[in-house]
Amino acid sequence: MSSLGNRKVLDMRIRIIELVLRCVILGLGILAALRIGTDTQVREIFSFQKKAKFTDMKALVFLVIANGLVACYSLIQGLRCVVSMVRGSVLFSKPLAWVIFSGDQVMAYITVAAIAAAGQSAVFSKLGQPELQWMKICDMYGKFCNQVGEGVVCAFVVSLSMVILSCISAFSLFRLYGANKKNSTSW
Amino acid sequence: MSSLGNRKVLDMRIRIIELVLRCVILGLGILAALRIGTDTQVREIFSFQKKAKFTDMKALVFLVIANGLVACYSLIQGLRCVVSMVRGSVLFSKPLAWVIFSGDQVMAYITVAAIAAAGQSAVFSKLGQPELQWMKICDMYGKFCNQVGEGVVCAFVVSLSMVILSCISAFSLFRLYGANKKNSTSW
Repeated sequence: MSSLGNRKVLDMRIRIIELVLRCVILGLGILAALRIGTDTQVREIFSFQKKAKFTDMKALVFLVIANGLVACYSLIQGLRCVVSMVRGSVLFSKPLAWVIFSGDQVMAYITVAAIAAAGQSAVFSKLGQPELQWMKICDMYGKFCNQVGEGVVCAFVVSLSMVILSCISAFSLFRLYGANKKNSTSW
Repeated sequence: MSSLGNRKVLDMRIRIIELVLRCVILGLGILAALRIGTDTQVREIFSFQKKAKFTDMKALVFLVIANGLVACYSLIQGLRCVVSMVRGSVLFSKPLAWVIFSGDQVMAYITVAAIAAAGQSAVFSKLGQPELQWMKICDMYGKFCNQVGEGVVCAFVVSLSMVILSCISAFSLFRLYGANKKNSTSW
């Protein structure tokens, strides 16, 4: 009985942490996508007008899409979280836990890959690559770069939260395959 | 008894899959690091000698280090795997399972981030970025680029294997927190 009580407290705590993280991801994911997606800067160079926008760099497009995707995903998962908290249902079904686990894993790796690619591009933009004669475009488009930087920081927090969430959902799934359960070998 | 037998078979299968994946990572990780790390090409341009090497691009340095690291890590983990297979010990201790889980998670995300950053650089090198006046350096250093490409493919398989391994070690850890166990709330 006491063990069952402990388990309920643990479950509730996990559920709350999960909900908080999903809200963080939802908020920051949208913010990152908006900051980067709406970022433009026009420079006049010898009466030419040159416009920098996020679609100039594929890594930023990937980052915007990834963050939009993960925000939508977190909205759905957050609602699911709220519903199960209101209903007070504690244990998952295995298929549902598998769906959540798989979704979280995929999203975690997508966001990490997106932030790594964008980070790489950001380094090129900021520092250039003199050996390859790639110039520092941030010297030219300062305001554009700063706004992208803000977006990248948000996206970094999103990917970190997603990594933690993927560990939580792994825990929620795999403890259903506990060593003392009879049907623990049914996969 | 039958459940216990099933469990042993499952454990052995998991152990074998784990060992195979760790060997794949060890082999391909070393191969990727060597292919990229030893890659150079000298071009003569107007009697200038220009040399391309992997340190010109930080993402490749990161990829080489990440693959070297994950290869060493896999060697140690593979040995641990073999020892526990020979000894026939089936169940992990929780602290050991936590160490393996944490290590695998960290390595999985590092390799995914490395491959994403290197992939991004590879796209820049292959296609250039005309909007930013970054030129296609692969047109200049064809042989260099092809060898990097081989390394990137190996590294991709490494990161994929590492992702699968991190799921396996999550399973091995969290099922120790099975729903029917008494000490399942002890963290």
